[in-house]
Amino acid sequence: MKLHVITTGGTIDKVYFDAKSEYEVGEPQVLEIFRDAHVSFDFSLESVLRKDSLELTDADRQLIRAHIEGCASERILVTHGTDTMVETALALAGIAGKTIVLTGSMQPARFKGSDAVFNIGVAVGAVQSLPPGVYVAMNGRVFDPRRARKNRERNCFEETGSAS
Amino acid sequence: MKLHVITTGGTIDKVYFDAKSEYEVGEPQVLEIFRDAHVSFDFSLESVLRKDSLELTDADRQLIRAHIEGCASERILVTHGTDTMVETALALAGIAGKTIVLTGSMQPARFKGSDAVFNIGVAVGAVQSLPPGVYVAMNGRVFDPRRARKNRERNCFEETGSAS
Amino acid sequence: MKLHVITTGGTIDKVYFDAKSEYEVGEPQVLEIFRDAHVSFDFSLESVLRKDSLELTDADRQLIRAHIEGCASERILVTHGTDTMVETALALAGIAGKTIVLTGSMQPARFKGSDAVFNIGVAVGAVQSLPPGVYVAMNGRVFDPRRARKNRERNCFEETGSAS
Amino acid sequence: MKLHVITTGGTIDKVYFDAKSEYEVGEPQVLEIFRDAHVSFDFSLESVLRKDSLELTDADRQLIRAHIEGCASERILVTHGTDTMVETALALAGIAGKTIVLTGSMQPARFKGSDAVFNIGVAVGAVQSLPPGVYVAMNGRVFDPRRARKNRERNCFEETGSAS
Repeated sequence: MKLHVITTGGTIDKVYFDAKSEYEVGEPQVLEIFRDAHVSFDFSLESVLRKDSLELTDADRQLIRAHIEGCASERILVTHGTDTMVETALALAGIAGKTIVLTGSMQPARFKGSDAVFNIGVAVGAVQSLPPGVYVAMNGRVFDPRRARKNRERNCFEETGSAS
Repeated sequence: MKLHVITTGGTIDKVYFDAKSEYEVGEPQVLEIFRDAHVSFDFSLESVLRKDSLELTDADRQLIRAHIEGCASERILVTHGTDTMVETALALAGIAGKTIVLTGSMQPARFKGSDAVFNIGVAVGAVQSLPPGVYVAMNGRVFDPRRARKNRERNCFEETGSAS
Repeated sequence: MKLHVITTGGTIDKVYFDAKSEYEVGEPQVLEIFRDAHVSFDFSLESVLRKDSLELTDADRQLIRAHIEGCASERILVTHGTDTMVETALALAGIAGKTIVLTGSMQPARFKGSDAVFNIGVAVGAVQSLPPGVYVAMNGRVFDPRRARKNRERNCFEETGSAS
Repeated sequence: MKLHVITTGGTIDKVYFDAKSEYEVGEPQVLEIFRDAHVSFDFSLESVLRKDSLELTDADRQLIRAHIEGCASERILVTHGTDTMVETALALAGIAGKTIVLTGSMQPARFKGSDAVFNIGVAVGAVQSLPPGVYVAMNGRVFDPRRARKNRERNCFEETGSAS
């Protein structure tokens, strides 16, 4: 497997800077996760955006899409904020010949007990196992974005009604 | 997805007891990993064995097989020691209608920076994405056990020659 | 040793709430730190304030002082934001018969690799070993607040010139 | 403060080697603990022994004593297995002009939730605050070794009767 990773920001990459007493999107955490896990597949990584997903615009989504269409790999992992992950997934529909899995985390990867490592694992397992298409991997499940949403009250992704 | 988890022991479940100054197979760590990750799928769990995988016998493998054949679920995750994971996977060949993924870890799940959480994630992503068959998920890759082995020098799973 | 702990907020107690995408002062982390460390001394705890230390007022410092003067214990641990820790320590000067140690952390206690657990440990070691007075425990050192300051560029506490 | 650290082995430095499926005393963990905590004091380190403390002999204890007597520093931190920590502390009695604090941990430093970081912190706080003498820092308390013992049933250090 040759995996291409695109990072866009979101909670997974948030860090805390005491000097400024702020909380910002930092370096892609997926690299450290891959290193700790001793992954043996080949991968490349592009940090395309560094935003909260609530701040992503249509132009940002077209930029992500262009990077996916332009890369050589057929297996794409996108790390993304959770709030608009489904929206971005829908904006990536119809890219031929590529398996694209979006994931992220509810807690920053730097936190003890964060869901980030597990979620990246699920996405890596799914991206090499599924046929071409766009998927969202959260809470241990691999969703069709046309039938998924983030339930903000329960802070959990869930399945909605049937796909159109 | 309804997932059935079978634990058999191995490094992933090893803990350290200071009172006895020993290192033993403890409770299944996969439960804590699922809880920390806030998984939202249904699952059941059986702790079938608690052994180092080097100590597993043919009878043990038949026991694991019987538990898989006897359970209602079509998605099976087996946690297992790494040394004979491939051997057990081969002993599970030919079970119809079930997707079976074996995983484990090189470092105990209780260790900081262990590969356990990531590996369980990869296995969870793979088990819900793949057609019926037996697979080994280690080092971020999903292997056909007929083409996989543990490289003890590099402490890493790798692909071997073509399947027979 | 009977230890009285007073928490005032600061980075050490900061947590991250994804639902709101904010970063706030949460529950006192010192309790979880004591529990993980299996401390065997008696202690009591008061959560007096929950503020960034840059927001602390003179009235807040008098409130902290009143709580220390009013409690029965002679050993007091104060968790506090780092930016004005020295200022608060100076405002506690002259309380007779009590050993008071202020500490905090540069990274939230919930972060992997945070300095919080170590700093709390240093403060606990110092508070039971030193004569009455006010001290600041940061970066593994126990400072006289009249000769200490936070170096914001280096994000580290350091000794200044001689006490007046 | 100029601190000299002597490591002798024990649970705190235990690591797990999957390739050999064994559990052994590894590199001194105190270095990583100091680095994560961003300590700003000067220190030197000697790894004098790498043993379970149950295996330490009188000759080993004389070796530790000789290293302490021979070093220039007046502040000495000794990491040590818990089972005979008190016995070694007693064997170090009477070294003039040096404050010596022994500590260790019930769980390996590499484990999540280990008491190692906290215990090292307590020892660092105590060693710079106490007059010359030998002390044992465990479970958040600083003991006189003549009045301390490890309670193996409760897996905790406690005070015994009065010193002779």
